[in-house]
Amino acid sequence: MAGLLHRRLRMRTALRWLSPLRTLPPGFSSSLLQTPRPGSCGVRCRELHDGGERPTPSPAAAPERRPFSRVTPEDLTFFSKIIPGRTITDPDILEASNVDWLKSVRGFSEVLLRPQTTEEVSQILGYCNSRNLAVSPQGGNTGLVGGSVPVYDEIILSTALMNNVLNFDSVSGILSCQAGCVLESLSLYLEDRDYIMPLDLGAKGSCHIGGNVATNAGGLRLLRYGSLRGTVLGLEVVLADGRVLDCLATLRKDNTGYDLKQLFIGSEGTLGVITAVTILCPRKPKAVNVAFLGCGSFEQLLQTFQRCRGMLGEILSAFEFLDRECMRLLNTHLKLANPITDCPFYIVIETSGSNPTHDEEKLHQFLEEAMTSSLIIDGTVATEEAKIKALWSLRERVTEALTHDGFTYKYDISLPVERIYQLVTDMREHLGDRAKSVVGYGHVGDGNLHLNVTSPTKDPALLASIEPFVYEWTARFQGSISAEHGLGLKKRNYIYYSKASQAVALMGNIKTMLDPKGILNPYKTLPDDLQ
Amino acid sequence: MAGLLHRRLRMRTALRWLSPLRTLPPGFSSSLLQTPRPGSCGVRCRELHDGGERPTPSPAAAPERRPFSRVTPEDLTFFSKIIPGRTITDPDILEASNVDWLKSVRGFSEVLLRPQTTEEVSQILGYCNSRNLAVSPQGGNTGLVGGSVPVYDEIILSTALMNNVLNFDSVSGILSCQAGCVLESLSLYLEDRDYIMPLDLGAKGSCHIGGNVATNAGGLRLLRYGSLRGTVLGLEVVLADGRVLDCLATLRKDNTGYDLKQLFIGSEGTLGVITAVTILCPRKPKAVNVAFLGCGSFEQLLQTFQRCRGMLGEILSAFEFLDRECMRLLNTHLKLANPITDCPFYIVIETSGSNPTHDEEKLHQFLEEAMTSSLIIDGTVATEEAKIKALWSLRERVTEALTHDGFTYKYDISLPVERIYQLVTDMREHLGDRAKSVVGYGHVGDGNLHLNVTSPTKDPALLASIEPFVYEWTARFQGSISAEHGLGLKKRNYIYYSKASQAVALMGNIKTMLDPKGILNPYKTLPDDLQ
Repeated sequence: MAGLLHRRLRMRTALRWLSPLRTLPPGFSSSLLQTPRPGSCGVRCRELHDGGERPTPSPAAAPERRPFSRVTPEDLTFFSKIIPGRTITDPDILEASNVDWLKSVRGFSEVLLRPQTTEEVSQILGYCNSRNLAVSPQGGNTGLVGGSVPVYDEIILSTALMNNVLNFDSVSGILSCQAGCVLESLSLYLEDRDYIMPLDLGAKGSCHIGGNVATNAGGLRLLRYGSLRGTVLGLEVVLADGRVLDCLATLRKDNTGYDLKQLFIGSEGTLGVITAVTILCPRKPKAVNVAFLGCGSFEQLLQTFQRCRGMLGEILSAFEFLDRECMRLLNTHLKLANPITDCPFYIVIETSGSNPTHDEEKLHQFLEEAMTSSLIIDGTVATEEAKIKALWSLRERVTEALTHDGFTYKYDISLPVERIYQLVTDMREHLGDRAKSVVGYGHVGDGNLHLNVTSPTKDPALLASIEPFVYEWTARFQGSISAEHGLGLKKRNYIYYSKASQAVALMGNIKTMLDPKGILNPYKTLPDDLQ
Repeated sequence: MAGLLHRRLRMRTALRWLSPLRTLPPGFSSSLLQTPRPGSCGVRCRELHDGGERPTPSPAAAPERRPFSRVTPEDLTFFSKIIPGRTITDPDILEASNVDWLKSVRGFSEVLLRPQTTEEVSQILGYCNSRNLAVSPQGGNTGLVGGSVPVYDEIILSTALMNNVLNFDSVSGILSCQAGCVLESLSLYLEDRDYIMPLDLGAKGSCHIGGNVATNAGGLRLLRYGSLRGTVLGLEVVLADGRVLDCLATLRKDNTGYDLKQLFIGSEGTLGVITAVTILCPRKPKAVNVAFLGCGSFEQLLQTFQRCRGMLGEILSAFEFLDRECMRLLNTHLKLANPITDCPFYIVIETSGSNPTHDEEKLHQFLEEAMTSSLIIDGTVATEEAKIKALWSLRERVTEALTHDGFTYKYDISLPVERIYQLVTDMREHLGDRAKSVVGYGHVGDGNLHLNVTSPTKDPALLASIEPFVYEWTARFQGSISAEHGLGLKKRNYIYYSKASQAVALMGNIKTMLDPKGILNPYKTLPDDLQ
């Protein structure tokens, strides 16, 4: 084993697109469908792409490996002393941590560390920094932009065993927990106490709260409870050199100096490793209703949204959409039936409130008006949990349906809400029959479109037609090229489409200040010209 | 004039406590009650406190003047070229900008600059940085911690003429405006368009939105709409060296890199000058109700709060309190009558919702239950605007009443909500009859207590009894020594009571990174050991 670690692997292009996912969504634990082929070096490694036939590398491809140290047997001995039995070098166990959920990027780390305490993380990072060893922090590994797996041989630092709830104050609703708590576990813990988590997302069964915060995850409840920038009250973070930064406040308000925790929210593990979180949780609503509606046009969908905000007001907790193409994929690949008439657009509206009678009354008044004024064509409403789940799954499982449709090019765009579907229409027209499917769905209430394009297999020519078209289109309307997924490895070099160069330069300064050797999650978030 | 600017003024203690305010709240424009006496140097300056009899200076007192350049006639010529007619040196006009609203701290700047555009601010700061001239950015000058006025001769950079709305999107509710827009003007602008500002505070008639953001103002609507860290979507900031940082996004979601704007929210003008803001505004509620209730004990008040959150849920928009002592001051100094029976505690509950009938029903059900279970002793409810305003004024005018009671020592503490009144009780017991009044009021919903102690005149012995007692008490319960007012000049050296030294050191690094010469709002926010 130790010998392998010493070998120099000649890597060029680190980002390798693998075959599309054919397994189930987060929570899966099966081995990879496509195991990596042994490279010429005799160890598991990424396929080499050497010069010659290779076109200009995509901005999504990884840059050259930076001159970090390589893990030695002495390093392993050190780690084993700090976290005995939790320094993993077994290739089979490492496999799941080296490949992302989409199975689109692969690293070849040979060490996975599983600390249980902040002190252990601190010792590990202090050591890695002094040894110039690169570290890839990893939560539930459910990210979609290649941010959660190593690119080369970075040590994987997993928060999986840091999964204790530290405290819950049932008066204030403030939860303190370690970073590795799984979002769904926290939700269940809180439900018993009449509270809910302020965020919810499809990957809840696997994702860690630390990862959610590190990536500033959005999800389904943002419309109602706001972003993690408001709900996260405190963080404990271990900096690159092992210092522990205690910003673990449990207060709703604190104006004593700069709000340092904000630096780490959404920084994708490049500035520090989040080890604990305090978060403000809302009361569990007494009544939840879900309506699944059909619209004839996106214009009508937007009018429905406006009407809905006015009439449902404070009880509106989600306003999501999917297009007819999404429904087709749900029908085809997951055998999910459309519960209403076939329509060009579908809406999922959720209300959450404190008075079931009032909420139903508001919802019915709204639906009546929306039907009368022909904004919606058809619809169905659920108040029972099972039916609510069934309706929600039509929205939540689109991602999964897409993985069965072929190789998927995924875009997560933020735009002024009036514009969000225009991008889908323009893309469809732009690609013509070169794409298999071009679908749009997402969070209307947040102006957040998930645009996905599929093709039977990986198709560089198609990709060249999509990019930079999609980014230029987005930039033209002052949108964001990553609304909630982050930049990770795949989108780091596209940052200039959404951020001014002064701002990007300042990000670089912050990175240098906090991680001067650049050991934390290298090749991610910041563009190559700043790495 | 120019000659005066050259004179070297020997300053030692820069913070001078003036007599208590006897005028009206923000919006006033009268001259100061106590004009400064000419110093020995023959120009207006702060009274000197030289060695000898002086005890150890309070941590609130300003440190020595730092070796910034002094403004020369050539500098004035330069400024006059950039902003002709808006480079103010008239001492009478400067007076109002040199003294804070509480009339508790006084600077002696001799130049007030009133730019109208970001470009002008950029040119000014670029010049000041190159000349090593210190700058005190100023909004509405309504701050309570001496953060908004110069300490020595810093140039005052006012946003007063940067007061244009740049854009309002009536679909998304996103407002873009210059930093100098007065909060109340923005509220009126939005009300015409069926929206409201997500924040509201007593100083709304004078405070600027740029100042609100720079100080991360809390106020009365935080319980419902969250903090500015969530509602501010974008900022334009001019950095110390004149570079313009454009983070003026108008998107609800954007995860492309670090959220730089957060650095400037709450940094009190020490990291950059905010020149424009985009902010997400909520719809104007269709129904607003206010209840003014009386409680027999703080324990009952907390139970009322819990019941209220459960039963009013999503329509609860404020839960404020004042104690009997506050009511006495309102009666005595402002002749405001108590609308209900005399009680130890009073609560102001506000509901904001989309359906007047539903809201009234919820409120009445809650009140009935609270009365039946003897949580509240008496109460009155208002639905008409005039009566709502009258009830609100009982909470909003406590600050004003205090200024008539004597010299006021003000504390703005964040604590776990169960603890907030215990501090008032303990302080009262601790001070005995040395204080004239010890009162508590504030934002229960946010765990934010305003503790105020008055004495007939300034009383250093009383102050020595209050501090560090109040800070130590707060630190013992992991509270914040400044929930919403910030640190400014007065509280900068108390930061360690609420922040770990690692965190404070990192703040220092950020300051050095963004403002290496330290010209922006010196002597504020950061403790002296970092300045």
